Amino acid sequence: MEENNRPRIRDLGLRIGAAETGPHNAITDVPGVRVGHVTLIEGEGPLRIGAGPVRTGVTAIVPPGDNWYDAPLEAGHCIFNGAGTTAGLSLIDEFGRLETPVLLTNTLSVGTVYEGVVQYMVEHIFRSRGEVPWFNPVVGETSDAFLNDIGGLHVRPHHAVQAIEEAAGSPVVEGAVGGGTGMSVFGFKGGIGTSSRRVEMGGEEATVGVLVQSNFGGRLAVAGVSMAQLQAASQPPPAQGSSIMIVVATDLPLCNRLLTRLAKRASFGLARSGSSGGHGSGDYIIAFSTTYRKADAGVGMRNALAANESNMDIAFRAVADATEEAILNSLFRARTLVGRDGHVREAFPINRALEILKHHNAL
Amino acid sequence: MEENNRPRIRDLGLRIGAAETGPHNAITDVPGVRVGHVTLIEGEGPLRIGAGPVRTGVTAIVPPGDNWYDAPLEAGHCIFNGAGTTAGLSLIDEFGRLETPVLLTNTLSVGTVYEGVVQYMVEHIFRSRGEVPWFNPVVGETSDAFLNDIGGLHVRPHHAVQAIEEAAGSPVVEGAVGGGTGMSVFGFKGGIGTSSRRVEMGGEEATVGVLVQSNFGGRLAVAGVSMAQLQAASQPPPAQGSSIMIVVATDLPLCNRLLTRLAKRASFGLARSGSSGGHGSGDYIIAFSTTYRKADAGVGMRNALAANESNMDIAFRAVADATEEAILNSLFRARTLVGRDGHVREAFPINRALEILKHHNAL
Amino acid sequence: MEENNRPRIRDLGLRIGAAETGPHNAITDVPGVRVGHVTLIEGEGPLRIGAGPVRTGVTAIVPPGDNWYDAPLEAGHCIFNGAGTTAGLSLIDEFGRLETPVLLTNTLSVGTVYEGVVQYMVEHIFRSRGEVPWFNPVVGETSDAFLNDIGGLHVRPHHAVQAIEEAAGSPVVEGAVGGGTGMSVFGFKGGIGTSSRRVEMGGEEATVGVLVQSNFGGRLAVAGVSMAQLQAASQPPPAQGSSIMIVVATDLPLCNRLLTRLAKRASFGLARSGSSGGHGSGDYIIAFSTTYRKADAGVGMRNALAANESNMDIAFRAVADATEEAILNSLFRARTLVGRDGHVREAFPINRALEILKHHNAL
Amino acid sequence: MEENNRPRIRDLGLRIGAAETGPHNAITDVPGVRVGHVTLIEGEGPLRIGAGPVRTGVTAIVPPGDNWYDAPLEAGHCIFNGAGTTAGLSLIDEFGRLETPVLLTNTLSVGTVYEGVVQYMVEHIFRSRGEVPWFNPVVGETSDAFLNDIGGLHVRPHHAVQAIEEAAGSPVVEGAVGGGTGMSVFGFKGGIGTSSRRVEMGGEEATVGVLVQSNFGGRLAVAGVSMAQLQAASQPPPAQGSSIMIVVATDLPLCNRLLTRLAKRASFGLARSGSSGGHGSGDYIIAFSTTYRKADAGVGMRNALAANESNMDIAFRAVADATEEAILNSLFRARTLVGRDGHVREAFPINRALEILKHHNAL
Repeated sequence: MEENNRPRIRDLGLRIGAAETGPHNAITDVPGVRVGHVTLIEGEGPLRIGAGPVRTGVTAIVPPGDNWYDAPLEAGHCIFNGAGTTAGLSLIDEFGRLETPVLLTNTLSVGTVYEGVVQYMVEHIFRSRGEVPWFNPVVGETSDAFLNDIGGLHVRPHHAVQAIEEAAGSPVVEGAVGGGTGMSVFGFKGGIGTSSRRVEMGGEEATVGVLVQSNFGGRLAVAGVSMAQLQAASQPPPAQGSSIMIVVATDLPLCNRLLTRLAKRASFGLARSGSSGGHGSGDYIIAFSTTYRKADAGVGMRNALAANESNMDIAFRAVADATEEAILNSLFRARTLVGRDGHVREAFPINRALEILKHHNAL
Repeated sequence: MEENNRPRIRDLGLRIGAAETGPHNAITDVPGVRVGHVTLIEGEGPLRIGAGPVRTGVTAIVPPGDNWYDAPLEAGHCIFNGAGTTAGLSLIDEFGRLETPVLLTNTLSVGTVYEGVVQYMVEHIFRSRGEVPWFNPVVGETSDAFLNDIGGLHVRPHHAVQAIEEAAGSPVVEGAVGGGTGMSVFGFKGGIGTSSRRVEMGGEEATVGVLVQSNFGGRLAVAGVSMAQLQAASQPPPAQGSSIMIVVATDLPLCNRLLTRLAKRASFGLARSGSSGGHGSGDYIIAFSTTYRKADAGVGMRNALAANESNMDIAFRAVADATEEAILNSLFRARTLVGRDGHVREAFPINRALEILKHHNAL
Repeated sequence: MEENNRPRIRDLGLRIGAAETGPHNAITDVPGVRVGHVTLIEGEGPLRIGAGPVRTGVTAIVPPGDNWYDAPLEAGHCIFNGAGTTAGLSLIDEFGRLETPVLLTNTLSVGTVYEGVVQYMVEHIFRSRGEVPWFNPVVGETSDAFLNDIGGLHVRPHHAVQAIEEAAGSPVVEGAVGGGTGMSVFGFKGGIGTSSRRVEMGGEEATVGVLVQSNFGGRLAVAGVSMAQLQAASQPPPAQGSSIMIVVATDLPLCNRLLTRLAKRASFGLARSGSSGGHGSGDYIIAFSTTYRKADAGVGMRNALAANESNMDIAFRAVADATEEAILNSLFRARTLVGRDGHVREAFPINRALEILKHHNAL
Repeated sequence: MEENNRPRIRDLGLRIGAAETGPHNAITDVPGVRVGHVTLIEGEGPLRIGAGPVRTGVTAIVPPGDNWYDAPLEAGHCIFNGAGTTAGLSLIDEFGRLETPVLLTNTLSVGTVYEGVVQYMVEHIFRSRGEVPWFNPVVGETSDAFLNDIGGLHVRPHHAVQAIEEAAGSPVVEGAVGGGTGMSVFGFKGGIGTSSRRVEMGGEEATVGVLVQSNFGGRLAVAGVSMAQLQAASQPPPAQGSSIMIVVATDLPLCNRLLTRLAKRASFGLARSGSSGGHGSGDYIIAFSTTYRKADAGVGMRNALAANESNMDIAFRAVADATEEAILNSLFRARTLVGRDGHVREAFPINRALEILKHHNAL
């Protein structure tokens, strides 16, 4: 990974909401949560299906522990727009249960990555037992067809295994990496972004962390300020496909119903960033709790919620704010990328954005 | 109704999105759609349950024609937050069908207004036939418990009948009227607001109209500019209940599936206005098409949608923009109201808001 | 209520499934659950809308305690067919919470009964506090338009109040009573039926109780044996409206998600009885747990479920079996009723059914 | 495929419902619909993960035509129990659109088969255009872990391609073939089964066809007659996983909403067969119409439905009956199979079942 000196929005003094972030302002601020990227960039020039150019990858969001089948996470989800092929959602609602890491990749590689997750689970968890049960891989996607040889299926199962194995809790690399490698947002280069918020409930503290793979369009607003004039100038032809995957992790002890409610509020952050909720934009939110299924974790928070569920309000604001910030980070951090057929996604022109923000006294 | 000189946001030069509005910038710009309000304001002083003070009412959104049972409207809906008691939604999805006007009132009067709709339908449609079938009244609500003697059930069935009978297509009265009489938004007086957008599809023109009954909280943003400093100064104690009802009418020929998709995008306008999506905020969107069930209406639009459903994008942007503007109109137009126990909801301080907007070069 | 010597199916030696019933084989076997009926039968002859004849009523299923607002029940629901107007379902899912009794009546009286529930709650719970919050009445319905002057709105709010006040835990009266007064099933007289099953989980015992208001059609099967030949002989013209309301109560400590899963399985009992799942048959299932929100109740069952959710299987079989039996009880117990315009619903001919069952060695 | 002389239930004189079947009593009676199986049976003895024994496969249900991306099918779905990993459902609802064949396989091979569908579509449809868009493969599954080396991932992408390429409209092979190779039902060998019904609507005739991949448990009833005594004698240890995939094809011109309603009624056939709706039984129904998106097809049926949607009733009965019969066919046709670790699934003892049916005068 070459160096990336582009700032996150908070480095520029921008703030979304009043709540504080966790130490890394990342989904990995939730204890035990790790992120791994495998980035595939190879070749250039005209598209030859199967040969490249390759601009794609895999991102793994790995919950705490190393055996999520026997110690599953409580989970929930929300589909704002089902224009996509994310796998593994029905079991999340039926059982309230996440039993593998969450993987993100390009649309047509969902199956390949699913197979990679199966391979990982078989090797690391089940082989030594001599038997393999059925289980439910969760694989999300957005389309990188504008830059990538998406039909060439360059992501292989071992890339998914690698993304899980290399996942780490350190600061998360953002922009054109992992599953976000070939993605675009608001007509600029996009991809992976992350953010987090600290919340207090029942005298205890917890974190709401968000990671997005951004790939959608609309009327970009940075902290409420329209960037229409930038978009007008630089908008390339519409991408083939647009969408967003939003993964929410928290150590709040939330059941499936409350995680579903939490996931819905992430769509408010999406809206505030300027998404137009486009027809072809598959917008999915997956949320999991690292503590709910540990009966003795977060007792103060559990009691607070049981006594008055409006204690969720702080978490609802947190997830919307962190989602908005994660989207903006994916935009600010991503560098220009040239893909197949010379297709270019320019990096967001931060300096010009700062001028606009200053003109509107928003900094 | 005494005079109300408070401006709508467009009177101040504010614009939400690029699309044009209809002639009245109201849901009644959709041909044949009418709105009727019955406003009940009576008494003052301490709450005596059953005696008042009364600050409530009924609003009827009446689709074209006068027999919606035999000539039903295609409809769809979206529940963003089910924290409410809106009646009549399951049939909308099952049959894709709206067969009565849509009524809005306070939470505990949903049943009474339901009975009023039954009385209206029996008298105006079924009595002359000698038989009454079952049908499905649609009644939405938000809670005015902060200002109104909500437990006193001052809305009676005949008020619902009256709201339907007096519905008219003229400019819609906004603010503290009808079902919105006792409502609050962002800590200020709220209630009824409306807006519309013109859309073009397949060489034909149509309108997307929105009417809201606003009653929720959050961090108000006017055209993207935070009004946090105004809220900090004036926010009264939290209302008992918070919610929004959003009714969308259109002469686009949209089926239940597309109306449901359209309804979802209204939540983006809600988000951009600053709603926090609070736990207790029942947020419901009901959408209907005045043309879908007339096979020969809007053929150009039908063909365009069948050929490429991404033609919905213009309607998606329209409904989000009109919803945001309708919410702001409900805020700007509503005047200060004193309710039960001396509870006060102040009118939104427009002049101070204009100063903030100017400071941010947003006008 | 005149005497009713018609047998329940179990009196005839019929069994649905292997599990035992509770002592009354009724929803009231769940500790604390009570049922109240108000039956309105008046007049005869031709329908004069508003004047009768009246063949309708209200049934209240009252959870334990007397203040369900401050001590709510956990609840869930399933809509198999949304062709109806049941009120109060969205909050059940959003909050997982039931905060009033569940009332059943005819379709067009949902609003009136809603108002009755409000009156009851205001008088018995809120008046003494001096303030009334918003809350969510739950009112289900099926249509008795074939026998009853449904447009006459003969159910008044005080009837709902009375049904709640008179609810008792004693054996439940079945057939043409309460909300079931004017209902029909499989072309015969139907209405209210109930049944229960004992279940064991984690070393503890509990009950799954079901009450139905039956009003649908199809190919009747009694314990799997087709009664087609009886239907062919006696089927009157199709009723105006058909549907079923199924209320499930249990002292299993089940959360909203598990209650929703439980509710779904009730539809299997409906299917086995012979329902055709008709277009116009609004089929709703509402389920609540009397123990889930009492953290120290049913700890053995909670642990069993947390360890292995397939412990639900016994409850899934129980609810399907009890639903099938409750439907058959509603059919077997209901007596012939003559309604408006001389419309007749004959009682199910039990003796002829027994002959058929014997012919098929099913007794 | 060795010969299989086991009868279908209709060969024995059993009838489910009164409607007639299509000429092959199979999903392929719907004009243009084809079915292809790839069956993988190899090795025996103890399970060595990755080495076998192999008892699995792929089944493709191929809609009319050869380019479902540009000429998509209208589709809908219903999840009765989301305990599975079926891919591709969210787009079906969002766009009402099926754009690939429907593939069935074992749970852990969903990803591999997804990749196979991508390969097929790239090669047969997109390669010649020089560009590949995103699209949505639909892949269902049930678990064959009891008989098969499910963790060995023996299904490869080319098997999915082969199943699509070899799909034919001839009579459908049933039992332990294709995706159904390693499946079990009611404790006996199960797998693939199919059935169809003729329906008349608006003066026109059409077909409702069903294909199932059966793999669930419960209390088997054949035409309503309990087979409990057979199950008691032969039930082996519970399978690792249980579920059913139900695919419904029809040339009725039904939109997404009506296909969703149709899919729901398939669950009634499932219930009547004796399914217990078990916790771990992922029960999915996918329905598509071959005519809806051809505006000039089935005009009489369209008009009938528009005039009175209760015309769906005949289709609702058809799909429930055909589903029940397809399940029974999957049971009757499947032969004994020995799998990994000597696990045996015995064929259903048809002769003993006939004795029971005769005893109950059900033949």
